[in-house]
Amino acid sequence: MSEEADHDHRPLVLMHRLPSFALPFRDRLHSHFRVLDPHSSITAGETPQAFLSRHAASVQALITVCPSPVAADLLDLLPSLRVVVGSSAGVDHIDVAECHRRGIAVTNAGNAFSEDVADYAVALLLDVLRRVSAGNRFVRSGSWPQKGEYPLCSKLGGKRVGIVGMGSIGSEVAKRLAAFGCRVAYNSRNKKPSAPYPYYANVCDLAVNSDVLVVCCALTDKTHHIINKDVLTALGRDGIIINVGRGALVDEKELVQYLARGEIGGAGFDVFEKEPEVPKELFAMDNVVLSPHRAVLTPESFEAVFEVIMANLKAFFSNKPLLSPVKLE
Amino acid sequence: MSEEADHDHRPLVLMHRLPSFALPFRDRLHSHFRVLDPHSSITAGETPQAFLSRHAASVQALITVCPSPVAADLLDLLPSLRVVVGSSAGVDHIDVAECHRRGIAVTNAGNAFSEDVADYAVALLLDVLRRVSAGNRFVRSGSWPQKGEYPLCSKLGGKRVGIVGMGSIGSEVAKRLAAFGCRVAYNSRNKKPSAPYPYYANVCDLAVNSDVLVVCCALTDKTHHIINKDVLTALGRDGIIINVGRGALVDEKELVQYLARGEIGGAGFDVFEKEPEVPKELFAMDNVVLSPHRAVLTPESFEAVFEVIMANLKAFFSNKPLLSPVKLE
Repeated sequence: MSEEADHDHRPLVLMHRLPSFALPFRDRLHSHFRVLDPHSSITAGETPQAFLSRHAASVQALITVCPSPVAADLLDLLPSLRVVVGSSAGVDHIDVAECHRRGIAVTNAGNAFSEDVADYAVALLLDVLRRVSAGNRFVRSGSWPQKGEYPLCSKLGGKRVGIVGMGSIGSEVAKRLAAFGCRVAYNSRNKKPSAPYPYYANVCDLAVNSDVLVVCCALTDKTHHIINKDVLTALGRDGIIINVGRGALVDEKELVQYLARGEIGGAGFDVFEKEPEVPKELFAMDNVVLSPHRAVLTPESFEAVFEVIMANLKAFFSNKPLLSPVKLE
Repeated sequence: MSEEADHDHRPLVLMHRLPSFALPFRDRLHSHFRVLDPHSSITAGETPQAFLSRHAASVQALITVCPSPVAADLLDLLPSLRVVVGSSAGVDHIDVAECHRRGIAVTNAGNAFSEDVADYAVALLLDVLRRVSAGNRFVRSGSWPQKGEYPLCSKLGGKRVGIVGMGSIGSEVAKRLAAFGCRVAYNSRNKKPSAPYPYYANVCDLAVNSDVLVVCCALTDKTHHIINKDVLTALGRDGIIINVGRGALVDEKELVQYLARGEIGGAGFDVFEKEPEVPKELFAMDNVVLSPHRAVLTPESFEAVFEVIMANLKAFFSNKPLLSPVKLE
């Protein structure tokens, strides 16, 4: 480490990310923290691993950029680590249980992304119901003058929308859909006193009573493939699935089959099980809207998550309560 | 006319439409009215004109399917006509002034389409801001695994949305956008006591103070090209235009130029000046969403407009007040 670094009194923070996922506000972080980023700070010829082991002993705080995993193997390298600051709403890439066992706190993006993700869920639902993307393709292909009228679409108002996961995102989705005249119900681990909508403890029961399911719960061992064959059958052939949570919340292989057989009405996906891979069968379907995991990709969301990350780091280094700690379920 | 028709006591209604625009509920109309449709009722060898002149003298009520024009030349053929029942919200295809001069009442679709059109305006706005259709194309083209991350889009919440035309559709748009956290203002002929939003008497002033314009006013001589060069300049290079009214409300040629030069941020069109022709320059633009005039194309809207048409016809034939009379401006 250079002499300059030795006299640097900014707290040390390790940036943990995949090479292709950079945070847009790195310079602003640098003004408060000494940021170690193996992908941009290493000296020529050094491997990221070598760089890491050179600095690992003193690192107390780590920022992790989804989907870069934080598990026992990484934690073993960082004996002083006391906080993992996440930059996403979902923390399925972080082994929270293992962190907690080692006395390491974990934070997430809090509500920073909730409004943008909720907006995107509504956008996907409107697109599937009203065939906006399909109509756009129809016009751009030059088909309108030749083929004339386009097939009917379906009204949003009056639809029974089941929200799977009534957290911060789910409640923003519900607020928006109420303005369109939808009838909202929900499933979550527990009934929420703050949510004035019918509660279903079982997702299949919710699906039977819904025209649309919006999936926005956290991905955990318990919610993996929460949208399975039984739920799809319960939702029925006119039913629509919107997924803005994580790909693995839906049994994608089953859903593709249901769509191919016409046993489900349509779907909007912002997330997939094996991103960026998307099942090719979906490409030919007009009742499906595909999006490259971008529900949070606005400058406004990035600014909001920067504030949350800064607040968590500042709280940590001044021994105050963290802004958005993740509790173990 | 057959002997059967002579003994038919159902009131006579003339259907006025282009061959390619049929109403979906014709059979249900038939159960209450004797519907004369030159495109389906004529006997072999007869021209629509000959058919019309054979029945014209007794026709008191006419249903017109947009965009089939109702003007002096048609009215001249129908000396007994007393009501023109429109099936659309906009009546720019009907010469309302000429009808009124002849003592002929005109009705429109009332509020039947307002919710669906408002939903569609929000869908187009979300699509332009969040690049849903563009993202869909990106995924379907197989670009995601190759090109990786997609450009940032823009958050709906906080946007200043100027609504041009605060009628039934405009107020439904405002209600929806409020749930997304937008700041709504509006322009219309007159300030509306029922609209709790800032009012601008001048569209340019509204544009200067807006990030987005949603155009949903009636097309009249006064509103033709209401979105012109000056308004586009006032809206500015990040501004977005959504048009769910009529194509000719926007100076399309100018707008295409502004888009091509990057002097406006993006646009969503459900309507065009020369439908179904769409300016080819738009096909290559990613910041534009094109839709084949389908904001009302849901079974729910069709059912609602059927109810309005039936109510107007029944009121007319029983000398009661019409449900949705169009007043001359």
